[in-house]
Amino acid sequence: MTDLKTAAVILAAGHGTRMKSALPKVMHEIGGRAMIAHVIDGAAALAPERMAVVIGDHAPEVGDFARTVRGDIAVAVQAPPQGTAHAVMQALPALKGFSGAVLVLYADTPLVTPQTLQALAGEIENGAAVAVLGFTPEEPGAYGRLKLDEKGALAAIVEAKDASPEELEITLCNSGVMAIDAAFLMKRLKDIGNDNAKGEYYLTDIVALARADGQPCAVIEADADEVLGVNSRVELAEAEAVFQDRMREAAMAAGATLADPLTVYFSYDTKLGKDVTVGQHVVFGPGVTVADNAEIKPFSHLEGASVAGGASAGPFARLRPGAALKTGAKVGNFVEIKKAVIGDGAKVSHLSYIGDADVGAEANIGAGTITCNYDGYGKFKTVIGKGAFIGSNSALVAPVTIGERAYVGSGSVVTEDVAPGDLALARARQTAIKGWAARFHDKHKARKK
Amino acid sequence: MTDLKTAAVILAAGHGTRMKSALPKVMHEIGGRAMIAHVIDGAAALAPERMAVVIGDHAPEVGDFARTVRGDIAVAVQAPPQGTAHAVMQALPALKGFSGAVLVLYADTPLVTPQTLQALAGEIENGAAVAVLGFTPEEPGAYGRLKLDEKGALAAIVEAKDASPEELEITLCNSGVMAIDAAFLMKRLKDIGNDNAKGEYYLTDIVALARADGQPCAVIEADADEVLGVNSRVELAEAEAVFQDRMREAAMAAGATLADPLTVYFSYDTKLGKDVTVGQHVVFGPGVTVADNAEIKPFSHLEGASVAGGASAGPFARLRPGAALKTGAKVGNFVEIKKAVIGDGAKVSHLSYIGDADVGAEANIGAGTITCNYDGYGKFKTVIGKGAFIGSNSALVAPVTIGERAYVGSGSVVTEDVAPGDLALARARQTAIKGWAARFHDKHKARKK
Amino acid sequence: MTDLKTAAVILAAGHGTRMKSALPKVMHEIGGRAMIAHVIDGAAALAPERMAVVIGDHAPEVGDFARTVRGDIAVAVQAPPQGTAHAVMQALPALKGFSGAVLVLYADTPLVTPQTLQALAGEIENGAAVAVLGFTPEEPGAYGRLKLDEKGALAAIVEAKDASPEELEITLCNSGVMAIDAAFLMKRLKDIGNDNAKGEYYLTDIVALARADGQPCAVIEADADEVLGVNSRVELAEAEAVFQDRMREAAMAAGATLADPLTVYFSYDTKLGKDVTVGQHVVFGPGVTVADNAEIKPFSHLEGASVAGGASAGPFARLRPGAALKTGAKVGNFVEIKKAVIGDGAKVSHLSYIGDADVGAEANIGAGTITCNYDGYGKFKTVIGKGAFIGSNSALVAPVTIGERAYVGSGSVVTEDVAPGDLALARARQTAIKGWAARFHDKHKARKK
Repeated sequence: MTDLKTAAVILAAGHGTRMKSALPKVMHEIGGRAMIAHVIDGAAALAPERMAVVIGDHAPEVGDFARTVRGDIAVAVQAPPQGTAHAVMQALPALKGFSGAVLVLYADTPLVTPQTLQALAGEIENGAAVAVLGFTPEEPGAYGRLKLDEKGALAAIVEAKDASPEELEITLCNSGVMAIDAAFLMKRLKDIGNDNAKGEYYLTDIVALARADGQPCAVIEADADEVLGVNSRVELAEAEAVFQDRMREAAMAAGATLADPLTVYFSYDTKLGKDVTVGQHVVFGPGVTVADNAEIKPFSHLEGASVAGGASAGPFARLRPGAALKTGAKVGNFVEIKKAVIGDGAKVSHLSYIGDADVGAEANIGAGTITCNYDGYGKFKTVIGKGAFIGSNSALVAPVTIGERAYVGSGSVVTEDVAPGDLALARARQTAIKGWAARFHDKHKARKK
Repeated sequence: MTDLKTAAVILAAGHGTRMKSALPKVMHEIGGRAMIAHVIDGAAALAPERMAVVIGDHAPEVGDFARTVRGDIAVAVQAPPQGTAHAVMQALPALKGFSGAVLVLYADTPLVTPQTLQALAGEIENGAAVAVLGFTPEEPGAYGRLKLDEKGALAAIVEAKDASPEELEITLCNSGVMAIDAAFLMKRLKDIGNDNAKGEYYLTDIVALARADGQPCAVIEADADEVLGVNSRVELAEAEAVFQDRMREAAMAAGATLADPLTVYFSYDTKLGKDVTVGQHVVFGPGVTVADNAEIKPFSHLEGASVAGGASAGPFARLRPGAALKTGAKVGNFVEIKKAVIGDGAKVSHLSYIGDADVGAEANIGAGTITCNYDGYGKFKTVIGKGAFIGSNSALVAPVTIGERAYVGSGSVVTEDVAPGDLALARARQTAIKGWAARFHDKHKARKK
Repeated sequence: MTDLKTAAVILAAGHGTRMKSALPKVMHEIGGRAMIAHVIDGAAALAPERMAVVIGDHAPEVGDFARTVRGDIAVAVQAPPQGTAHAVMQALPALKGFSGAVLVLYADTPLVTPQTLQALAGEIENGAAVAVLGFTPEEPGAYGRLKLDEKGALAAIVEAKDASPEELEITLCNSGVMAIDAAFLMKRLKDIGNDNAKGEYYLTDIVALARADGQPCAVIEADADEVLGVNSRVELAEAEAVFQDRMREAAMAAGATLADPLTVYFSYDTKLGKDVTVGQHVVFGPGVTVADNAEIKPFSHLEGASVAGGASAGPFARLRPGAALKTGAKVGNFVEIKKAVIGDGAKVSHLSYIGDADVGAEANIGAGTITCNYDGYGKFKTVIGKGAFIGSNSALVAPVTIGERAYVGSGSVVTEDVAPGDLALARARQTAIKGWAARFHDKHKARKK
């Protein structure tokens, strides 16, 4: 989306103790994807020449995970933590030889958009040594204030505790996110000191160094939602809500109807077509695609599934990874589909489990049908031919093939292949014991007396 | 509700391109009913002498649909669209000979209440030539301003682009909805010109004509929610939310408990009795009636169903059209009922599909029972007598009758009628293969090594 | 939590006609527990020496219920109702000989916290004769105003109708909740008169009596949410929402992730461990405990259930009272568990009903399995041994035992015990009728012509 020369350094070394979690903070998910992956994806949209992540030595899995998101990301370790400037210092080797804008991002601040990052990097291209991402919080409180000069350029970052009453009136605050000219960063980062209460090296001091050198500094302002940092589960829920609202608005703008947007949950990669209708209370896990004119009815949960044009699922449908509903297929209530293709116009309307299966076009799967795909050790496949009819409450013991236009009688346990056009029955004859129930009821009623 | 003489002209010719939908905008639904039907219903509450809808030639189905809502509605076509006055002009033939108040309504503004319409028409009866429905939006922005004279009567509608800075300060805005004296409308509508940027004929100009004639004009103010116009899916969702809030408040005021009102969704015609309890996450589709003291538990989805006093459904109940739960009946989790009567005190507690059936009073339907009502071509009926007991995991192959107090053994496939008081069994004898499972497990475990 | 000497008088005599309910108002539930029980619990946290509830004679069941919550609560009847002072008068016999702080609480005001009650009682210990709980509502309207003297002590409660314009500007209002020194109460309560429009005895007059005696009066301010009184279903829903928000925040602060907190509903006694993950749309009924690292997936409904560490339930899981998932057990979609232990690592993944059962560790229960635990009169138990495999769509007719590592073939109806390591089959042989389905289809297609 840009021809700016950029690099990204993502800080991910914090302990996140307020999360009260064994999982590293930045691995907690937003929209079904780890926060750090959102930050990597956001930076990756600018096609940076270099990317580095700085992790703590308490959570090496964060580095491993980052490499699964983007293979060429450099992983630097900061131990012990000595502030943000110290963290960026660990990433300098990964930037060696790079010239352009270095974006400094936070793995726990997952909602900054590529558009904002590009604007920030653009300020470096336009000549700034440092560009800081500002925002206007509802309560400026303890945030550092961004003090502008008469030309609107950034004059200083003033920490709240050092601010004059007048400076405290400033509402534009420092998000911590910034872009720094690579040459300037390499020259001056080492000059940041740690003469402060905590004895840490703060990256914000880079602004004062730039101003001391007569280098211009810039500010880009973001929406407060965009720079929401996650330090607790409550903030995680807030970030999730912001993310969901973005996804909902994008889906509606693209032509999907959401009966109540607030009850529809997207994953980071959910794709909905035009004139898709989504009922109340629908959860999209990762990997779902819904094509034009499809309908997802209330109380449905989809993940790793594709729904073709004009198909419908739900209410109470559960589509698991590998479920593929073809054109006009219908999956009804209390039905689970896993790793199975439901062919054009085929129907699985009630209380069924279809797993590891291939259901032909226009086939009808009766209520209560179960594909017995697992024997305790392996998984086996069920193939149902076009136009076949599976009577209700049948069990299809895989591996098994039901031929085209074949018919399985209700309540059958099918263990052998059924040839096309045949009727298969696998059920016992009905017998009656005259009067048994009347005697049974009478006996129990007598006892109650 | 009134003896005012009224007529209603509903404008429905817009293209609604921002919806990005193949469905005409006014056919999108609020509370399970097309927006245009809400507007027709709202006007119909005043028992108007005439009703007309003005549609575009791109969507003749809108006119057809309007006639299904109200058979005597006149359908006029406006093509090409040349503004609101031009639209009303197309409806004049349908008003021929009518005297009284002509309400001009918009099919994409579905939430105006009959009370408001009546107040508006009342102003005509009280001598106004034109009565305009005003509202105070959060952001007046581009809305036309309603300028009042010293007596509080409407002096002029000032378009935002033509307004003086002083006029822009006015917060009372034009919703477009109005009532016009029929005689005045017929006399003066033709005098509205199109000397404006778009070359269209605007109905708002009728106010200036009335004032020029020395005719009084009035304003009625509505809540901003009431005149919410729908031009996008986001606005559709907003209108749906307003509608749902109205329904929720009305249900609670009438004595229903909604555990979390925000998660209960009504259709336009949902009826709940007193001391009805509705759990979280319940969706009422069209045509549902729930009588006093009934309980709808969480995660239930009802449409076209009736629930009698003291009956309960859910959690996870799915009642489809024709489901009728009689007094004290219970339908439990993962149960679907379709076109079936569940008699007094009868129970269908778990994982069942009961379709095209008649279940007698006090009958007990075991878990996993399926009525096999469909053979791929026709639907057939299952009759279950009073006090009958259907063992779990049974399949009842319709047409079939289970007699009163009869008993079906678990896991049976019942294909023949069962006489009253009899026990029916239709299942195979159990056999054992000694040690098979132990060998099977061992073999698989050996393989893994 | 305190060594204050306290007693609590809970007023519960109102008719609650605005609820439009046959159930006494104070028996309506918040978080799955009657409002009056919340008030009793809140007071009980201070370990009061005496507790009394004052009920009306129209609803004696309220007193009976109060005694089930706390056996030693005194029940006084106020009939007919003659105001709050008159109500407290009925409780005086229960306070005989008590000295300390008497808390006067309202059974329809269920959200006051023990911390607040303690602060209120503390004021009595500190020498006040009366301490009133104030709050600052959004709209002071008709609330009595709390007028403070120059030292910040309570000078008077001024009813809105008697207030001067200046007094109406006061925003601190009277919640009605108060603590009164027992000796002072017993001496002066009888002096409250009923010379007012309704001819009732108002407890608020106790403040004027104290001031007349030169006794100090104090104010404690609570959050407006805390003193929310419930008089209608809408207010019941509002109180429920406040309660839910408290529970959600507490759960997150303790280390649980709630994907969307607004869609998770707690009962008063729900317990969630650390790193528990709760998906969207989950309802916890009373009596649920979820241990560390367990996962409750979307659309699940639990009550009276325990979920051990690392176990998971849902989506679409229904755990009823007596369900116990042991370490690492998995219960999947459209599965109901009732009064059953699911052993370590055992799996019940799809469309099953397991009731009155004991499932051994590592057992695998196939899709569509039903325990047939009920014969219309009694409930019977199913025991499934460790490592057993139950093939899909099986019915286990209790009482029955499946031995360890035994295997039940898919679609079997098991009526007899299966020995350890055996394979049980109880299903019919499959037969084929050649070409039947082809002829059936052809016949129906011919008919359509």
